[in-house]
Amino acid sequence: MSPTTFSLEELLAPVQADLERMRQVLIEALSTEGLVGERTAHVARFRGKELRAAMVLLCGQATGRLTDEHPKVAAVLELIHLATLVHDDVLDGADVRRNLPSVHVVWDEQTAILMGDMLYSRAFHLSTCLSSNLAARVLSMGAQRICAGELEQAARRYDFGMSQQEYEGVASAKTAELYAAACELGARYPDSPEEPASEQARMMRGFGEDLGLAFQIIDDVLDLTGEASVVGKSVGNDVEDGKVTLPVLHVYANADAAGRKAIESAFRDPCTGSRMDALRSACDLEPGIAHAKQRAHGLLTQALQRLMTLPDTTARRSLIQITEYVASRQK
Amino acid sequence: MSPTTFSLEELLAPVQADLERMRQVLIEALSTEGLVGERTAHVARFRGKELRAAMVLLCGQATGRLTDEHPKVAAVLELIHLATLVHDDVLDGADVRRNLPSVHVVWDEQTAILMGDMLYSRAFHLSTCLSSNLAARVLSMGAQRICAGELEQAARRYDFGMSQQEYEGVASAKTAELYAAACELGARYPDSPEEPASEQARMMRGFGEDLGLAFQIIDDVLDLTGEASVVGKSVGNDVEDGKVTLPVLHVYANADAAGRKAIESAFRDPCTGSRMDALRSACDLEPGIAHAKQRAHGLLTQALQRLMTLPDTTARRSLIQITEYVASRQK
Repeated sequence: MSPTTFSLEELLAPVQADLERMRQVLIEALSTEGLVGERTAHVARFRGKELRAAMVLLCGQATGRLTDEHPKVAAVLELIHLATLVHDDVLDGADVRRNLPSVHVVWDEQTAILMGDMLYSRAFHLSTCLSSNLAARVLSMGAQRICAGELEQAARRYDFGMSQQEYEGVASAKTAELYAAACELGARYPDSPEEPASEQARMMRGFGEDLGLAFQIIDDVLDLTGEASVVGKSVGNDVEDGKVTLPVLHVYANADAAGRKAIESAFRDPCTGSRMDALRSACDLEPGIAHAKQRAHGLLTQALQRLMTLPDTTARRSLIQITEYVASRQK
Repeated sequence: MSPTTFSLEELLAPVQADLERMRQVLIEALSTEGLVGERTAHVARFRGKELRAAMVLLCGQATGRLTDEHPKVAAVLELIHLATLVHDDVLDGADVRRNLPSVHVVWDEQTAILMGDMLYSRAFHLSTCLSSNLAARVLSMGAQRICAGELEQAARRYDFGMSQQEYEGVASAKTAELYAAACELGARYPDSPEEPASEQARMMRGFGEDLGLAFQIIDDVLDLTGEASVVGKSVGNDVEDGKVTLPVLHVYANADAAGRKAIESAFRDPCTGSRMDALRSACDLEPGIAHAKQRAHGLLTQALQRLMTLPDTTARRSLIQITEYVASRQK
């Protein structure tokens, strides 16, 4: 895979007009009067790369299935993504999101919990206004998988004995699901959910799943290596929260008893400074980071192979470039 | 209104078989393997009076619109209710629910937030499997209103200057909405949401709205006067949380400057004992409680009048008796 030299805007050029339509739907869905409106306006500023929304549109275009409703489907997906972000920040105690204070920092945890619920409900409501209920079905199922993944993750705090497969199960559920759903819906909407998914729709779902898992693994690497000002959110959270991610699991699995004890201690023992610094002192993270990057690279290569069955279009070229973008992202 | 002498089971006798079907759907929706299953199993034990579910069925029967799908619609409603309970306990810091420890007590706040999200998603998913998307539409709209009401309530903590209308706006949104939705869906399902609601469906919605608001006012009274062992959840929470409810608003509005200061102090000043005791010492709550009970009674009388347009059936008789049950409830 060659490092990408395109900006994300360039990669999304083939679906720019539809992305703009998606944004209109999203902005309208986030516009409310009064007290709730003030809070949704803040959440609207968390809108970021809108990569998941773009995947709906690009996969629709790449499979020749794009309809007028695809931008709305994409907006529903972004709303669910925003809902998960608002709750995630509470769960993770993360105070910064896209260089802005999190909802629970501006207001309080109660507001953040309720705003997340509000966004979920608004997303589902929007999905019930579409002509096919495929999006409502796929995304309400997907939201359950995301929650199950997050619950599993919460239960596995400080679990240094987790296998790579178990880690990937959690990462796939909590992160890859929305990418998988985006790609599936792009390739399948507006079929009825009762109609079995086509071979192509299942292939696109697999592409999203690979891409999303790679995205999460790279996210976990960035939480260990990134600079908050570049990543746009606080880093070192995983260590603070007791989340044992792939790089650490790998280093731990290959450490001797003393090395393991030092890693555990950096995560758990009373600590006056930053736990991230303690972890860096406790072990050499490099081999773990290299292992995680290699795994992400392998997943992205597999994702690219899946795209080879599609006709060569500008949309497919964008999907290929997004895969390369994910591989090289620093934020 | 005569005090009811029936047990709730007797009142629900006309829809007993359908309530049993509702429970089967609900239990199935709450049965999951593994880690998530352990947590949903605990939430399943919070199932209580199932009054909202019963309203779907009774309103369906009373309007002659009951279908095979009504028990499923009722189950979706109960799932949303359970989701709000789990999040409410976090928002309110309430440690006991139906004489059981709350989710955030057994596990932690993270688990409670995620379990609520999971239950919302499961409810919406179940609603997308119905033949009409009326339930999905009405309930996703309703869930937004509930969140908006809760947000308004959070923003109005310690707001002693709230008008009764503002208080009722919050109480209606956070509590009456689910009753209103239940009654509307009972009388309207499986019409398309695109079809305007009939006069009768709007009347039934109004009945649910009145009943639900009265229910919340009585709940607020019980939080001031009830015994935890009878109510089945902790009491005195509102005072602890800075929620100024109708009885207190009334007493405050009629107090002199010194009396108002004493009430504010009971809510806000550092306090070693129970704030409820402090409030009881600060003022005579009785006139406020009497005022709130009178308002609830007025709403229930209005609710009963709405039922008079329905034919005289056993279902209507049950709805009348439920209204009397709400008037006299101690828990």
